[in-house]
Amino acid sequence: MASFQVEVRVSPRADLLDPQGKAVEQALKRLGFAGASSVRVGKLITLTLEAPSREEAHRLVEEMCAKLLANPVTEDYSFEVAPLPAPAAREG
Amino acid sequence: MASFQVEVRVSPRADLLDPQGKAVEQALKRLGFAGASSVRVGKLITLTLEAPSREEAHRLVEEMCAKLLANPVTEDYSFEVAPLPAPAAREG
Repeated sequence: MASFQVEVRVSPRADLLDPQGKAVEQALKRLGFAGASSVRVGKLITLTLEAPSREEAHRLVEEMCAKLLANPVTEDYSFEVAPLPAPAAREG
Repeated sequence: MASFQVEVRVSPRADLLDPQGKAVEQALKRLGFAGASSVRVGKLITLTLEAPSREEAHRLVEEMCAKLLANPVTEDYSFEVAPLPAPAAREG
């Protein structure tokens, strides 16, 4: 088993309204940030994953996104999987 | 004025509890993803920003984060500012 650092980015689909993004945009404008537009608010999910290989880690994260982390009707997602160094204790 | 694509990443501070991350972690484990741990849920905010220069865009985003996008007591943030190509209409 190896450890992987996983980062999942979940965003509202480009063709859908994003009420939270709209609210943030209006708040920014009220604060004087007149040049801000197209604000969208998504989720950034980070986790550590134990898996036998990077390929298997990818497969597991894809399944997590489809089953839980993203709503396939309203959200797009992408993710990155990076190997973590083995714990130092294992080398002793 | 130039246009910039801005991406702001807001995460719960490492030394604080993250109830949303804990809930996602428990849901993942219930779904059979036993190898998932250290789940944290943050925000990913994207926006377009008009600014006279990249330096000024950086300054504005820093101010947005401090004033609205992140809670400095409970959250850490980082951001990237990338120039957007000028609209094609301007070249006509």
